[in-house]
Amino acid sequence: MAFSEFRPLHDNSLIDYIKSVPALSSKIANDFDNLFVKEVGDGNLNFVFIVLNSAGSFVIKQALPYVRSIGESWAMTKERSYFEWLALKEKGRLCPEHVPEVYHFDRTMSLIGMRYLEPPHIILRKGLVAGIEYPLLAEHMADFMAKTLFFTSLLFRTTSEHKRDVAEYCGNVEMCRLTEQVVFSDPYKVSEYNRWTSPYLDHDAEALREDNLLKLEVAELKSKFCERAQALIHGDLHTSSMMVTHESTQVIDPEFAFYGPMGYDIGAFLGNLILAYCSQDGHADQANDRKAYKEWILKTIEDTWNLFQHKFTALWDEHRNGAGEAYLPAIYNNPEVQLLVQKKYMTDLFHDSLGFGAAKMIRRIVGVAHVEDFESIADAAKRATCEKRALDLAKTILKERRNFEGIAEIVSAIRKYES
Amino acid sequence: MAFSEFRPLHDNSLIDYIKSVPALSSKIANDFDNLFVKEVGDGNLNFVFIVLNSAGSFVIKQALPYVRSIGESWAMTKERSYFEWLALKEKGRLCPEHVPEVYHFDRTMSLIGMRYLEPPHIILRKGLVAGIEYPLLAEHMADFMAKTLFFTSLLFRTTSEHKRDVAEYCGNVEMCRLTEQVVFSDPYKVSEYNRWTSPYLDHDAEALREDNLLKLEVAELKSKFCERAQALIHGDLHTSSMMVTHESTQVIDPEFAFYGPMGYDIGAFLGNLILAYCSQDGHADQANDRKAYKEWILKTIEDTWNLFQHKFTALWDEHRNGAGEAYLPAIYNNPEVQLLVQKKYMTDLFHDSLGFGAAKMIRRIVGVAHVEDFESIADAAKRATCEKRALDLAKTILKERRNFEGIAEIVSAIRKYES
Repeated sequence: MAFSEFRPLHDNSLIDYIKSVPALSSKIANDFDNLFVKEVGDGNLNFVFIVLNSAGSFVIKQALPYVRSIGESWAMTKERSYFEWLALKEKGRLCPEHVPEVYHFDRTMSLIGMRYLEPPHIILRKGLVAGIEYPLLAEHMADFMAKTLFFTSLLFRTTSEHKRDVAEYCGNVEMCRLTEQVVFSDPYKVSEYNRWTSPYLDHDAEALREDNLLKLEVAELKSKFCERAQALIHGDLHTSSMMVTHESTQVIDPEFAFYGPMGYDIGAFLGNLILAYCSQDGHADQANDRKAYKEWILKTIEDTWNLFQHKFTALWDEHRNGAGEAYLPAIYNNPEVQLLVQKKYMTDLFHDSLGFGAAKMIRRIVGVAHVEDFESIADAAKRATCEKRALDLAKTILKERRNFEGIAEIVSAIRKYES
Repeated sequence: MAFSEFRPLHDNSLIDYIKSVPALSSKIANDFDNLFVKEVGDGNLNFVFIVLNSAGSFVIKQALPYVRSIGESWAMTKERSYFEWLALKEKGRLCPEHVPEVYHFDRTMSLIGMRYLEPPHIILRKGLVAGIEYPLLAEHMADFMAKTLFFTSLLFRTTSEHKRDVAEYCGNVEMCRLTEQVVFSDPYKVSEYNRWTSPYLDHDAEALREDNLLKLEVAELKSKFCERAQALIHGDLHTSSMMVTHESTQVIDPEFAFYGPMGYDIGAFLGNLILAYCSQDGHADQANDRKAYKEWILKTIEDTWNLFQHKFTALWDEHRNGAGEAYLPAIYNNPEVQLLVQKKYMTDLFHDSLGFGAAKMIRRIVGVAHVEDFESIADAAKRATCEKRALDLAKTILKERRNFEGIAEIVSAIRKYES
């Protein structure tokens, strides 16, 4: 059976496909008699199959030419699968501890075969909704972000490597366009896809569309997203893009990857943690008031940035005499100037991260794609209260981001929006 | 005779080549009997032949695989010729009034055939050294920069068009690397290619290498140059990249073209006008004290920015309901926000232009490639006085650029460095 042109795999053709690919069939010892196959894709875009038996396991992820959560009316290139594979390989090379191994890629079929992240791995967002603490999360995500961003930036790379890869990832333009629309545009205009907890947030949604200063700042962020090729970013690093256990953090789904601003990744993660925080009051009950859990989230936010900053500058120090084009050792060769440039770089990156993080928060409350953190709060009034708090906080952070001098001040700001 | 692989053309093979290309030979009515051929390349990089007879004329520009002004030891891809041709075509389409027509391109031979800019066209820099006023220069250059930058930016283009072209011009990486080295790196470190008017500027050259705050700012500019794909820039828009008469301004030599920050082009032009200004005292004599000419240069600097700003925002207003991705009409649809975003955009662009312009001034005084404005001042002491004034001014502009609110303040700053 040949798979010489694209077609969506269903359970039967999936088996035929696996039989035709030794890199996959060998993982299950070519034993198809007691095979467990289950479609588990719950994201917005793709189909995901778990394939396992007693001998082994893997996951098949296939991109379809439309946005799954919207339907065939919203076309979406399946070529994203190619860029997801490229990014998985590159990020896996740079940070194998936190990226699942890839076994197979088929560009014609827009199909990736990769490691099955076995239980108790769950999507982080589900863990956050359930109130589960992950003691290593901040450390792991700081590690993933520091390594994948530093090693693909001009702090480490030559201009030749950089421009070659920038050009390659320009091909992932459809995914960039999707982000531009749903993150930077739709929330600030009337759009058929926008939705929010109505009628509670009707006024807030309208206020966004009339907030000139906010729109001015959003334009600056959008321009950075479109124009600034700072590093190979994941491009969608929210809390549903990682699977976790107490010991393990695995980053998945980099199909939005391209050369963009680092702050977009850091902000996505921090912004979604803040959303998780703001949703906790909606999940509190008599058995668990979630107060301790909220403190853990705040600590994770603070630790993530501080550890990231520490790891990123440590990589910089370690490789300061390397081939990176940005700060040539012959120029930035004294401790004083090194300190100056690092402080400026990290401050700018911090402010970028806050801006992008806040924009990501806003779009999850009034845009097309919402988050389970809030959606799972059944009581609409209660949900709206949580969402409004998050929205107001995001607007403040976005507009005032340059006045925040450190992550501790952000944590203070989050606490202020408590009451 | 075939030209199936690259070889440098000399007068004889040049004729054979022209005979083999109808697009060229037809320009001179296929008459080779009374042909005038002259090599006139005086730039740093290429060979340029004028070919003319009574029937017509053209210019042949051929790139060689090294930097002409340094020699074969400094290799330089001849593929730059392809990007020069691409950029000439694109800029010619956007602003035909100020870009010479291209007749022919041969990628194998790295050869462009184009309009011969007949006398009295001369290189602008030579006119500035000679003290000639060009009453339309500011208007023409503002027009060229406004059109070529606006129409290749996301103010006018879609993301798809933008990423496609960004990827293409990533191929011109060797020229970007050359700029990174000679503009943003060499002047701030010890480099075998650096030179300056010694011993007068020995201390100043050393001071640059020890100025941490300056190096901090230069790093930010370099990062913008390397990472920010804002528009298709010329990439080398100094006063030797245009040929002029009283009525005509023709921009040539875009072999450094790529998607970069707009301010790099605007700054190159303004910075080189400031260099011209600073050199005038070295050219003054009893017949001409150059005072009136200096005023004309200042007026041209001021007019260029003001006219550019006016033309650029007029294009923006005209196309505000077009397909440009940056400021969607559905979001930026009220006069108040439109004013806000334009003011911010133009202020940021002004500060970028000042920074890049100042960096270009510095490198012309202490780097590898100097300018005739100063080089033609025979008296070294007098030359050094002019250069030092320009250098100090450039350092101030580079470090303080964000404090300048308009071009009039720059003109005042230039006057201050007079004495």
